[in-house]
Amino acid sequence: MRAAPTQLFVYLKYPAFAKLRIAAILLMKCQTPKPLALLLPNSTIPMPSKDIFHQSVRTALEKDGWIITHDPLHLKVDDIEFFVDLGAERLLAAQKQGQKIAVEIKSFVGASEVTEFHLALGQTLNYRLALKKEEPERILYLAVSQDTYQDFFSRQFIQDSLKEYQIKLLIFNSLNQDIVLWKE
Amino acid sequence: MRAAPTQLFVYLKYPAFAKLRIAAILLMKCQTPKPLALLLPNSTIPMPSKDIFHQSVRTALEKDGWIITHDPLHLKVDDIEFFVDLGAERLLAAQKQGQKIAVEIKSFVGASEVTEFHLALGQTLNYRLALKKEEPERILYLAVSQDTYQDFFSRQFIQDSLKEYQIKLLIFNSLNQDIVLWKE
Repeated sequence: MRAAPTQLFVYLKYPAFAKLRIAAILLMKCQTPKPLALLLPNSTIPMPSKDIFHQSVRTALEKDGWIITHDPLHLKVDDIEFFVDLGAERLLAAQKQGQKIAVEIKSFVGASEVTEFHLALGQTLNYRLALKKEEPERILYLAVSQDTYQDFFSRQFIQDSLKEYQIKLLIFNSLNQDIVLWKE
Repeated sequence: MRAAPTQLFVYLKYPAFAKLRIAAILLMKCQTPKPLALLLPNSTIPMPSKDIFHQSVRTALEKDGWIITHDPLHLKVDDIEFFVDLGAERLLAAQKQGQKIAVEIKSFVGASEVTEFHLALGQTLNYRLALKKEEPERILYLAVSQDTYQDFFSRQFIQDSLKEYQIKLLIFNSLNQDIVLWKE
């Protein structure tokens, strides 16, 4: 039988809480309890979770005078129900002086920013098409944090893609819970 | 101290091999070795892996007289390198009588078909934009299996989305390794 290590390290390149949860449960089931340490690569700062971003955007919109009308906004078109879409961030719906918007919040906390961007683009375009059929007056915005906007969305190709597919952005500061910019 | 269970079950709704690998490593480190059982929901049939689809499409193209020129096709535009994109399926490039194509193979074996479709759409549109900049004569096709095409792509919203965003499809039979349909 192997000697039980006094401590077990799980190296994760990026926060992966599903893995951590399983690791923690399994360690609880070990006969010799072991502390679980999370090693992060240099300069990795723990990222806010999806829910924190969602709450930041909600608060930022309210501070800007918007009334949250749906949280989440339930989108069902033809035979596709987007609400039950696994892994999808919840859509927010808000209105202000007769203007109606839907906001898709993307945290970009996944393993690859490029993959997250593919997903964000596809999701935004499908939601936009769904809204066009169901509620054509509601305008869809993709909300990303100021950090993501400055670090990743500033790249030339991302800028070109956003322009080509006419993606409207809402840039927010997740700490101050403020809207920084609406980018049409 | 908790009594060690004689067997530990990890319930996974869908295959998640990263989690399983961690579970197996952690169990090896327990003082009392425990067998690891994988419970799958009823009616879950193990799906072909991404690589099997990739090989099917490659063979189907060759049988149809195409010469595979790049496997994988390395796409780098401005400051985005798509090839290193984590989790992305590899792009194939082929040519036949002066015609050049790129083929993005999507297996739809993930947890949610709707999420997979968002990702496929975003990826196709980004690759198409990248090709337009780098190799405008090369036409991009999204390859999906006949099963996925009949079961999921037949839905009205998916049809509308493919039409709206002008996605060209290559439908293949993964068992016979044949091309079933080119859909412009």
